[in-house]
Order: sequence, then C-alpha cells, then structure tokens
Amino acid sequence: MKIGNCVIAQSGGPTAAINATLAGVYSAAARNFAIGKIYGGQNGIEGILNEKLVNLGEIFDKKENLKLLKTTPSSFLGSCRYKIKSGDEGKAVFEKIFDVFTKYNIKYFFYIGGNDSMDTILQLEQYQRKNGGDVSFIGVPKTIDNDLTCIDHTPGFGSAAKYIAASIKEIAADTAVYDMDSIVVVEVMGRNAGWLALSASLAQDSKGKCLADLIYLPENSFDFEKLIKDIKSVMETKRQLVIVVSEGIKTADGKMVAESSVKDSFGHGQLGGAAKVVEAFIKENLGIKTRSVELNVLQRCAGHFLSARDINESYMIGESAVAAALDGKTGVMVTTKRAAEEFYGLNIDVTDINLIANKEKTVPENFMNSEKNGASEHGLRYLKPLIQGEIELPMESGLPKHIYLKDFI
Amino acid sequence: MKIGNCVIAQSGGPTAAINATLAGVYSAAARNFAIGKIYGGQNGIEGILNEKLVNLGEIFDKKENLKLLKTTPSSFLGSCRYKIKSGDEGKAVFEKIFDVFTKYNIKYFFYIGGNDSMDTILQLEQYQRKNGGDVSFIGVPKTIDNDLTCIDHTPGFGSAAKYIAASIKEIAADTAVYDMDSIVVVEVMGRNAGWLALSASLAQDSKGKCLADLIYLPENSFDFEKLIKDIKSVMETKRQLVIVVSEGIKTADGKMVAESSVKDSFGHGQLGGAAKVVEAFIKENLGIKTRSVELNVLQRCAGHFLSARDINESYMIGESAVAAALDGKTGVMVTTKRAAEEFYGLNIDVTDINLIANKEKTVPENFMNSEKNGASEHGLRYLKPLIQGEIELPMESGLPKHIYLKDFI
Repeated sequence: MKIGNCVIAQSGGPTAAINATLAGVYSAAARNFAIGKIYGGQNGIEGILNEKLVNLGEIFDKKENLKLLKTTPSSFLGSCRYKIKSGDEGKAVFEKIFDVFTKYNIKYFFYIGGNDSMDTILQLEQYQRKNGGDVSFIGVPKTIDNDLTCIDHTPGFGSAAKYIAASIKEIAADTAVYDMDSIVVVEVMGRNAGWLALSASLAQDSKGKCLADLIYLPENSFDFEKLIKDIKSVMETKRQLVIVVSEGIKTADGKMVAESSVKDSFGHGQLGGAAKVVEAFIKENLGIKTRSVELNVLQRCAGHFLSARDINESYMIGESAVAAALDGKTGVMVTTKRAAEEFYGLNIDVTDINLIANKEKTVPENFMNSEKNGASEHGLRYLKPLIQGEIELPMESGLPKHIYLKDFI
Repeated sequence: MKIGNCVIAQSGGPTAAINATLAGVYSAAARNFAIGKIYGGQNGIEGILNEKLVNLGEIFDKKENLKLLKTTPSSFLGSCRYKIKSGDEGKAVFEKIFDVFTKYNIKYFFYIGGNDSMDTILQLEQYQRKNGGDVSFIGVPKTIDNDLTCIDHTPGFGSAAKYIAASIKEIAADTAVYDMDSIVVVEVMGRNAGWLALSASLAQDSKGKCLADLIYLPENSFDFEKLIKDIKSVMETKRQLVIVVSEGIKTADGKMVAESSVKDSFGHGQLGGAAKVVEAFIKENLGIKTRSVELNVLQRCAGHFLSARDINESYMIGESAVAAALDGKTGVMVTTKRAAEEFYGLNIDVTDINLIANKEKTVPENFMNSEKNGASEHGLRYLKPLIQGEIELPMESGLPKHIYLKDFI
C-alpha cells in the first residue's frame, strides 16, 4: 500500500448528491493511515493545474461540517468543463499536473464526475503508463443524467428523479383544478438519454395511474403528428393532460425539436426549449389552453428534497473509491450492479475506465411502453427503488443549511 | 345559532395550503352540533350553480383522509375563475344560487379564495341584504400572492415563500460552481404585488448575506439602465449573480417588461416572460453568460416542502371561519394581526368584506432597501417567521401522498 497524500476534485454539472460522494471519499481517506493529507482541488482539474488546493482535513475534521456537506447540493469544491487537449498543448498540461502531484506527494487522485471527467481519468492513466508515475487514478461517478455505462444507476440520479416525480405530481394537481381542457408540457434535462423524463412516470395517482400522461424521450424520434394522435387518445377519458419531454427530443431527421421554428398565428417564430416548441404546436393545431414549464437547474440541485437511498449510496460509492485505490486499483471507475430485480440490493465494484469514458448509456427499448410515450412495467421496476427514503435535513431559519467553501479559504 | 347545513368551496389559483384551510373548516364544522351536513361545492361557485355538491362527511369522517387533505397541494374541490355579472344575467345567477341554498338547507357558506372570491362573498351578502335570506357568508383567505388587505399575511404565502427561498439558495449554489462570470435571472409570480419576489431575500449564506443579489418588484418602475449599474456594482466583489424579478415588473411608462420586445444581435424578437427579456438585455449589453429560470406553477403547489407555520395557521384560519359564522357573523373575511414584531404571534379576527374585496395590498416602501433592489431589515423581519417549521409528510413509494376528489365521486 502506497503512503502519500490524496486529492479529490469534482467536475461537470452539479448535483444534489455529489457532495455526499465527496463526504464518503473524505471520511474513508481520513480513517486510513496510508493516506496523509486530503486535498480538495478547486474547480476540478483546473485546481490541480493552478495549484488551488484546499486542505480538507482543516474543514472536515469537524463532524458537524462533514454532516452538512452530505446534504449540501451543488459542487462544494467548484467544477469545470475543462478537457485536456491532445498534442503539445496537452503535453504541457499533463507535465504540469504530474509536477503538482510530485510537489504535493499525491499518490491518490479521486475525480468525481460524469462522462468528460472519466475521459480525464483515462487520459491521466494513459499518460502515466507511458511516462511513468505511481498515482492511483480513480473515477467516482456522478450525474443526474444516469448516462454512464457499467453502472446500475449514477449517484445524483435518484434525487433528481424524486424531485421530478414529486414536481410532476404537484403540476398534475395544479392543472386539474379548472373545469376545462388544458395541457401542461414539462421539459426536463437529458440531451441524448431520457432517464430523467422517464422518471416522471413515478408520479402516480392513488390508483397507480401515471400522472405524466405522455412522456417523450430523445431515444425515439419525435413525431408531431403522433403527438396530436396521442393527445386525442388520452383526452377521450381525461380533460387535463401533463406531457413530459426531454430537452433533447429530435425529429426523425435528427433535428432537435428545441431548434424547430414553429410559427404562431401571427407568424412570429417561437424561441426557447423543446417544451416551448411543443406548447406552440399544440396551441396552433388543437387550440387547447397549453402552458409549458421548464424544470431547468432546479432539478439538479434540489437539496431540499433528497432521495435517502441516493444520498447514502453516493456516500458509500465515495468510500468504495478509497478502498479500491488502497487495493492498488487505478484507471478505474467505481461501478454498481443491482443484485436482483425483485429485492433491491447493490453490489459495488470497479470497472476499467476504457469501458466507460466517452460512452453513453441511453434508455433501453424495453423500459418504454409499446407506444413509446411512457414507461413500461420493467422501466418502473428499475426506477422505483431509486427514490425511496427521506433524509432529515439540517435546517436553519426554516431553510436547509448548506456549507460553503468560501467560508474556509 | 342557526341550525342548518353548510357548503365550502375553493376558488382562484391553487396553493399548497388551501386544503389545510379546507381541513380546518371541515373539522370545526364537523364537531359543531348546529351544522348538519357539510357539502363541498365543486369548482367554486360554479359547483353551487350546477348543484355539483359533494357530501364531505362521507370522505372526511375518516381521520386518515383529513390528515392527507391537510398536506395535499392544489384545490381538492377544484376551482373556478367565475365572476358573477351585474344586471339581469347576474340576477338570474343569484336567484339560482339562493334556490340551491334553500333546497339544501344551507345556512353557512365558506368561500376559500383570494380577491375575486371575496368579491363574490361581497355580492352574495349585498344581494341577501336586499332580497332577504339567512345564510352566513364567510370569506376564508388564501393566495400565494399575499395581496389581500386587512390581514398580516395570507395562507399559502408562507409555503410559497419557503419554496422560493430554498430554490434560490439552490440556484445560487448551482451557479457558483464555475470559475467564470455568470448571471441567473429567476422569475417568480406576482403581477402587481412583489411579495413572492421579496421572499427570495430569505435565501442567505452562512454569514447572512442575501443570495438573491438583486430583487426587482412591480411596486417600483423597472429601469434597464439602473439594472446594468446594479449588476456592475455587485460584480465588483462577486462573479456569479442571482437576480430575481416579479413577473409583473413594469418600466416607468407602465409597460410590462414581459411585453417588451428586446431584439437579440440577429434581430430576432425575444418572446417569453420578464426573466427572458431581462436575460436577453443583459447578454446583449454586458455579454455575460446569462440564463433565466421561471419558477412557474411549481412555486404555488410545492406540497413537498411546506412551511409548518403556514399549514398550521391555514388550518386555524379555517376553524376560525366556522367560529365566526356560528357567532352570527356574515359578509366578513377571516383576518389576522401580528401581535408584535419581536415575538411572533397572530391574533385572528374577522373584517367587513367591503374593506377587502377588490383591494390589493402591495409591498410597502419601507420593506425594501433604499436602492429598491432588495429587502430592508424591516422586510426581512416581516418575512422570516412565515417560513418556519417543517411538516412531516405522509409518504407513499418515496413521494408525498395526496388525496383526490375523483376517488370519491
């Protein structure tokens, strides 16, 4: 087992669970004698490059702070969208990063992030294999998009799914109050993978009927004529509809719906996201009162309504990253497999980063119904366990209490 | 004390607390021997007109259902935007309503709603005074807009304010992660009264600094040049800004900002709400990465994150409506006064509906700072008590459990 210091950094879009993972990595590292100082890199890999390193021990030896971190949404250490370039420019960057590793005696590097971050881990691992070095590079997954391969579901997805499902339930209740035909189109995140839109299917009424009447994912081509047919079909038995669309829905020609130019009756082009375009199309073609709601960044940082399973798993995955590193692993990401479909249980392991970086897991066909406008039973069975349980939040003046890096640097 | 039946109806936009008030009216009526049957009118006054009356005793004699009602958002009985017309058309409507009252032996009418609903109470009271009758007409306040007069704050406002403040806290955390200049413009509801936008000031960091850096209300004219000045001033010490605007902000000429036609650099007109217009203006004039978030209907029905004080007060105000009716009052709305600014306490009373109907309470000048771009200490002291406390929600499959009228009719 190597003796040395470690650095943890966070990258990509923030989530409500990424700090729970940071807390997991920190606490496993802190209780291990092989690891000395635990540094946090500010703003992802940029923090290593610019030597913006924070001594996390000074913050999190206080149990109270570590507890706060677990339920603070967004990235405590800040984030970046930095991609290491190839060629000479990239070479200089790698050299600088490894110089910093040497200078600070870093033997373990934990990178909490999504697809792009796993590419960084892959590149660092490849560079080291070619040029020598003894740093363990461990990818620690996070993304609300749930689009990483080799993992049952990604940390952060469960809390986002829970927030979305609760919001859809509330939007459905809100739109049902007037005795008139009406439609709400809700846009959720997901450019290529429709996991978040699919999670809207978890919003059900007392009889188990899905409150998102129609759900459209980017995995299937979006057909405006089919939409009208679907709406008419639902409206045979129901006057107020909720339609959920992924931001990335595309028509058969591969064109993003969000970029479509639907003209209203005055000839004005409608700008905005997919929901705005769908809203305008429905108004124009069916004349039904329609409004659109974009869940926007709220869905990725809703720390006030967390899935306990997601937060606890995210923490455990952080701990497992440290165990893997101390076990001599490098160039891997922590991954999970579901033990059985009937009785939920999660097996944690690691997988070669080559199988993960730059790959994307979309929603399988059998997770959707045959009409491709909602979840199948199979899809629902997959989703349901992920939103279970509530976390008792530390509160202050009626609001969830957060912890801020700026208070310590 | 009159012996007879009562009818309760809900009107106007839904809120997260309007059903808590319904639960309060129901339970006070149910334990009182003077009141026989307790009817619910479906879709507000329209339910009376169309004799769509539900026997609420059959639903809520089950304690479990009444408990669910208290935390179910939106209007359990449905709503309407119906206004009784004047002249002959109105006369026929009044006659029909009073016929229904006679037919069902209604002696007490409780109308839970906002401004328009109080106008209905006023008109019914006036009609009865002129034409005879012995029905007690009691207005029971609700509105997230907090714009009713003669009341310290309206039921529903506290929960909406709590949701908005928590969301602003999360949006601020979300936007702070990248090491670059950026602005988020958040639009909240409020056409003429800026109470909801003001409540964004409750989102504070660990040092008590407001996380909504700039807040603009419809009470003050919105000046685009002043906005630029304000942004530059905040950006002297901070790189990521959160700006909150009421949907109803207007320029000095009285024109809604939402209706402004700001053209982007391609000459395209930007459509959408106030936040979209402000977003486009900032991008065009400062070239800073800007996005807008519209909280939309989410803010009025966020039953997953309630203010315990709001829900409990809403329930008590419902109970007080029954007490007032049995005390012989009619043509009144239940109102409240804050006992003292330092130690929060609420005195409940009733006020003549003439003083309330068709009036609007906007944010007083001294609730805002001198720059008119944030709350004053006085404003914060007013807001803080209203978002205190959490409610333990009945959960089902990881989501808040709701009760639906359609399951009983």
